[in-house]
Amino acid sequence: MQVQSVITFAAKPGFLENDIRVKPDLDALGALGDVGWYCTRSILWANDFELPQTATALPGTVYNKAGVILSCGAYLDWEDGRVATFLCSFLSNLTMDVLVIGSKGTLRFNDIVIPYEEDKVSYTTGIECTYNDLATGWGVKPSEHIVTTDIPQDALMVKEFCNLVAKIKYEGAEPDNTWPIISRKTQAVLDAVKASIDSGRKPVDIVY
Amino acid sequence: MQVQSVITFAAKPGFLENDIRVKPDLDALGALGDVGWYCTRSILWANDFELPQTATALPGTVYNKAGVILSCGAYLDWEDGRVATFLCSFLSNLTMDVLVIGSKGTLRFNDIVIPYEEDKVSYTTGIECTYNDLATGWGVKPSEHIVTTDIPQDALMVKEFCNLVAKIKYEGAEPDNTWPIISRKTQAVLDAVKASIDSGRKPVDIVY
Repeated sequence: MQVQSVITFAAKPGFLENDIRVKPDLDALGALGDVGWYCTRSILWANDFELPQTATALPGTVYNKAGVILSCGAYLDWEDGRVATFLCSFLSNLTMDVLVIGSKGTLRFNDIVIPYEEDKVSYTTGIECTYNDLATGWGVKPSEHIVTTDIPQDALMVKEFCNLVAKIKYEGAEPDNTWPIISRKTQAVLDAVKASIDSGRKPVDIVY
Repeated sequence: MQVQSVITFAAKPGFLENDIRVKPDLDALGALGDVGWYCTRSILWANDFELPQTATALPGTVYNKAGVILSCGAYLDWEDGRVATFLCSFLSNLTMDVLVIGSKGTLRFNDIVIPYEEDKVSYTTGIECTYNDLATGWGVKPSEHIVTTDIPQDALMVKEFCNLVAKIKYEGAEPDNTWPIISRKTQAVLDAVKASIDSGRKPVDIVY
């Protein structure tokens, strides 16, 4: 399986001067820690949260004057041959594309972090796609799926968080480790990508 | 600018056994020489046919028993920081995605080699896309463009070829070097990718 994840936006001058994401003593991971987080999460999601073995930075990392990353890329690889690439940037046109390709299907998102519309989102699936007999077009094409929501995704996140807290507070439950595990795995990948960038693009083992 | 090009199809058993593209004494470049050719061409096209400096193979190359490539990937990089990645495979679901991202625009194709429909093709452009004020959706979204054609692309290619021959034969013109130059540049990139794969994924200079 192969995943390509690209999440970029063209930050305004004020952001590039003042935002916490471009300050070495605040969010020192810059674009990697911000949009690169979503890239990494989407790749882990598509791989059932199985961690890759190594992360290797791509060329072309851009830093600001304080040494914070404004744009970078990496590829991740698993022992069984799976590969994923990602690009994240504060310096490119707003783009949020994730492409997942398996032997029998393709899954495509174009607005994976912030949806085009607040109340619905679409994705495309292609299942065992083929050309037509003369290869003048496709016989089996991808199809679009639309998911509507009454509550925006941000509110659903807060609702999930409140439910988790309520279970502990009112039902005596143990904390649910689902989200902390996913977050820590995401951070482990980001740390390896950063170490690879700092090492001159050597492959770095992902330590969890 | 960043380009991601993915062109794959799930070859049938008969193809994987008998096609010229999987025979070491015929098209020995396998998936790289077949679908990888289109990946490379799309990347060069998006970069005004300026050759990258180096090509570096990604992990995960798959070979058949005769040592011909069935699946591989690479990244290409230019001296000024541009990067492109591509994935090409005979072992994945039919996918033909090219994504080009610049500082002010995004261009997206989903059926770049063989169109979904013979008589029309669509692509998506996003120009200076932005979120809306509350980042609950996008203020400036990508838009889809449809191009129709009376003559299929394959016939247009033959027509172009005939016109070029006719100019030489009936008008005494010199051969037009446009297509040979583009073809040779494409081959130069493929040769560097193959050399990188064979070297254990070292970066290889592109020689033209």
